[in-house]
Amino acid sequence: MIGRAAAIFRVNEVIIFPDDPAVNQSRDLNLISTVLSYMETPQYLRKYLFKVKPELRYAGILPPLRTLHHPVTKKLRDLKVGEFREGVTVSRVKEGVLVDIGVERPFLMENKEIKLNKRVTVRTTALSPEPEATMVNRKEVPSYWGFQVTASDMPLGQLVKQRGFDLVMATSRMGTPFVNVKEAILTRWKNAYQVLVAFGAPARGLYEIAKLENIVLDQIANFVVNMIPSQGTETVRTEEAVYAALAVLNVATMG
Amino acid sequence: MIGRAAAIFRVNEVIIFPDDPAVNQSRDLNLISTVLSYMETPQYLRKYLFKVKPELRYAGILPPLRTLHHPVTKKLRDLKVGEFREGVTVSRVKEGVLVDIGVERPFLMENKEIKLNKRVTVRTTALSPEPEATMVNRKEVPSYWGFQVTASDMPLGQLVKQRGFDLVMATSRMGTPFVNVKEAILTRWKNAYQVLVAFGAPARGLYEIAKLENIVLDQIANFVVNMIPSQGTETVRTEEAVYAALAVLNVATMG
Repeated sequence: MIGRAAAIFRVNEVIIFPDDPAVNQSRDLNLISTVLSYMETPQYLRKYLFKVKPELRYAGILPPLRTLHHPVTKKLRDLKVGEFREGVTVSRVKEGVLVDIGVERPFLMENKEIKLNKRVTVRTTALSPEPEATMVNRKEVPSYWGFQVTASDMPLGQLVKQRGFDLVMATSRMGTPFVNVKEAILTRWKNAYQVLVAFGAPARGLYEIAKLENIVLDQIANFVVNMIPSQGTETVRTEEAVYAALAVLNVATMG
Repeated sequence: MIGRAAAIFRVNEVIIFPDDPAVNQSRDLNLISTVLSYMETPQYLRKYLFKVKPELRYAGILPPLRTLHHPVTKKLRDLKVGEFREGVTVSRVKEGVLVDIGVERPFLMENKEIKLNKRVTVRTTALSPEPEATMVNRKEVPSYWGFQVTASDMPLGQLVKQRGFDLVMATSRMGTPFVNVKEAILTRWKNAYQVLVAFGAPARGLYEIAKLENIVLDQIANFVVNMIPSQGTETVRTEEAVYAALAVLNVATMG
């Protein structure tokens, strides 16, 4: 659900952070980030990038993302020159490396430094006589192109300090109703390059997480916001809060 | 997910309608509405109202709603006079009927007409010497009090005609972006008693459903709205669309 929400609402990065500094949560962080990375990786590249791991035992039931970076075309003849694709470098040849982009034949990329078995974003430059592509920065791709997954070993407060986001919104049932801070958020949003929207964990909300870290949530966040005014249930699950908050922010910021 | 979303966003009724008039979908309608009704029923009343049914084989994994009408108090001594509870009429006595409201002892309700094994909403009127309660209309309860579940044998167009909603919003990727019609919707919303927000099915969206019914979606809906502008994925699942649309409407109408 988190992976699907991230893709639907065009999230660039999902950061998983520990919610209790007293406990070593590296296994949980690793499980969640492995599953999310797997989901985000185009199906034809998974065999290169993921070994058979116990964390991925149930990965077969994960819903497909159906983003543009998970193309359904599998034939060279259906490709166009100038198309963006995700690929993996599979072997070295004298002109550079060959990249598997999910069609019958690999594409030649003139790059001699790049390592093998590395995921890259490419743009096709020729389809015949030999298929060729050039590496691009994913930021150059004009469409939504998936999310990075980061497992943070730092708790929230440290993470916020270290990453230097331009806008930090914490979500909480105890926060200010969104409408009351909407204009202030949108003003900052327009000039922000990196926005963090933080969510609590299944076991505890952000105020409690901050307390365990000995920080004050309102001091590390620019806004602590309630995105679900008058909720009909005692609790809202993390994944539900993610859908609700991102849906509201999507409409507010696209408007 | 649909049941949880309905409760979080305080939905009064969930209507399941067939999405293809050429197919007899009564089994699917029955499965979905049975599962939703089960979820909506307080746990202590399920034994009276649901027999062991194959549709409920996996009901044990359904997440609890955690609404106020699913109270956690199970002891008579923790109740207060004037509290609202859901109950089931379990036996007839000379003064009326006894109602199980989820504590050790049933409550006497002075009502001689009501049938047994019927779900009722009550307000406690005395805790001792004998526990007593009076039946109330659920509309009198000041808090959100769960949703009704309706399995419609009519397709969408007929349903809309027959029920006479004051405002019908159809959701579709091809609809008008919400911000463009927000003010018009809110104006009607304020004066509306019954609002329908319609969603497509997993297999087809509302435009396609309408077409199969030989009706024009824009003629039966006051607004056809896109609640997820610039979606990052090719498709949005019904349950995802429900969270997104209800979250946006909740913030817009509470503001």
